[in-house]
Amino acid sequence: MKRTLWASLAIAALALPLAAQEAAPAPSPGEIVAAADPGDWIGIAADDLLVMDLAAGRDGQARRVVIQLMPEPFSQGWIENIRTLARTRWYDGISVNRVQDNYVTQWGDPNYDNPEAEGEAKPLPGGLMVVPQTEYTDLRTAGEATWFKWADGPYANHHGFYSGWPIGWRADAKWPVHCYGMVGVGRGMSPDTGSGAELYTVIGHAPRHLDRNIALVGRVIEGMEHLSSLPRGSGALGFYTPEEADKRTPIRSVRVASDLAEAEQPRFEYLATDSETFARYAEARANRRDPFFIVPAGGADICNIPVPVRRVGEAG
Amino acid sequence: MKRTLWASLAIAALALPLAAQEAAPAPSPGEIVAAADPGDWIGIAADDLLVMDLAAGRDGQARRVVIQLMPEPFSQGWIENIRTLARTRWYDGISVNRVQDNYVTQWGDPNYDNPEAEGEAKPLPGGLMVVPQTEYTDLRTAGEATWFKWADGPYANHHGFYSGWPIGWRADAKWPVHCYGMVGVGRGMSPDTGSGAELYTVIGHAPRHLDRNIALVGRVIEGMEHLSSLPRGSGALGFYTPEEADKRTPIRSVRVASDLAEAEQPRFEYLATDSETFARYAEARANRRDPFFIVPAGGADICNIPVPVRRVGEAG
Repeated sequence: MKRTLWASLAIAALALPLAAQEAAPAPSPGEIVAAADPGDWIGIAADDLLVMDLAAGRDGQARRVVIQLMPEPFSQGWIENIRTLARTRWYDGISVNRVQDNYVTQWGDPNYDNPEAEGEAKPLPGGLMVVPQTEYTDLRTAGEATWFKWADGPYANHHGFYSGWPIGWRADAKWPVHCYGMVGVGRGMSPDTGSGAELYTVIGHAPRHLDRNIALVGRVIEGMEHLSSLPRGSGALGFYTPEEADKRTPIRSVRVASDLAEAEQPRFEYLATDSETFARYAEARANRRDPFFIVPAGGADICNIPVPVRRVGEAG
Repeated sequence: MKRTLWASLAIAALALPLAAQEAAPAPSPGEIVAAADPGDWIGIAADDLLVMDLAAGRDGQARRVVIQLMPEPFSQGWIENIRTLARTRWYDGISVNRVQDNYVTQWGDPNYDNPEAEGEAKPLPGGLMVVPQTEYTDLRTAGEATWFKWADGPYANHHGFYSGWPIGWRADAKWPVHCYGMVGVGRGMSPDTGSGAELYTVIGHAPRHLDRNIALVGRVIEGMEHLSSLPRGSGALGFYTPEEADKRTPIRSVRVASDLAEAEQPRFEYLATDSETFARYAEARANRRDPFFIVPAGGADICNIPVPVRRVGEAG
């Protein structure tokens, strides 16, 4: 079997002109992104960046996480809750309370909506709106999404990207999807609870059953490993039990980047999802031709096409 | 909007007979599994279980990982390589060398096929076969897979389960898929390299582009958190650099469970994927009706229907 395969390849090679035989291998998705034109990158507003500093790791290493907040129409007034919580320093001193393997890491008040809670919940600042968790504006009122290509399997008729965000699409609705690293608003059993004080990020296979059941508000764009590699909780839903309360990672501070001194503001940009470069990148994710791959998949689910995000100045 | 919603619900409630108003909420997928008939569970042969003990954690906690090896037709003669490597104790003293966020944790000889390697590779025992990484027997020659229901999006025409394993299906091929926790054979650039000495497991969103490009040989059925929560490597592909060699987690021993004393053999069983209980479980994963959920997804991708596996004697 193996010998036959090699023989076929040898014959195929002989039949190709010399130039083709010596051609460079097809570029990987990363190489396509690295070669993007500078004009394909779009800066992210400092007002849409959250800088979250966890307590240092055991080896003293700094643990900074940067979150990009989602724009309208998918996230609306309630995004302002998150800025308010950061500006009133409500987030400072809370902790990571839940790490459920192949699901989510969740941070907030350890005494809010936590089956392992022992104490009183921390009062919230005034003026927050209740997040209507299942309400998303239909994209048709806000412009068109781009790059719908492959069917989204069981979840939607199509999938694609809108202003740099992954979305699902059916005739009657469009919505952001729960890919790895996306950030959402924890809530109780009632859909219209949750303020943004309790947040989680996806650390496993995309839990698409949460789509349209919980409001997504952003995604982790740097430092994801500081949230995904934390010890798993052994309590209900992956919450840390009172006996393992010392595993809760303290959150030192959360700041809106625009509130930091100019020199301290991190600056990021994303690859325009309506650019020709992005289309080629996505196509290469779906049909890997770089040398390691033998059998291209012929498609990619939306969470296997992560939108490239980089620090400003990190040209390839 | 909120008031309108509540009013609608109140009217709907009034229109229902009292019994329906007081009915128990729909069972969650976990509740369906817990109520399965004992006859729906199938024991896993001790010869198909690998017991891998990592060095104790920083807090002295034991870290045991149990892997279920895959049966024919998807894994064939090369599965015996893994038993040979365990029985010759080749795995004892190797380490976890690569942890790439949202991708894989990989263990083996730190000097084999590692861009960060510094030393000589450890010799392999004789008698191993080369794993033909892209060769899978077509299931049509070996019986029928069960429970194909929803389209598999871009990856296959259908998906389903065969003898407890997730598989993709097109007219010309069927193959096991790279879900979270699946274990595969690391290889070099040539497809026909790799012996089973170098293994990896998926720690993020299912990298379905690896399907049919690398041979899957099993899945982690216990202790996954000991592999998924390890510190990420900062070298190429998530390998630990020589400077962070102390992050490599030592593997103390790997044993085939059937080689352990009878009393020390872990015993596991899986929910028969051709059982009516499994069909109800999968349907409930696709259409969550337990109280937290508001909008059922209407479908589920195959990696969002993990096959239930439990220790023998853990009835719900």
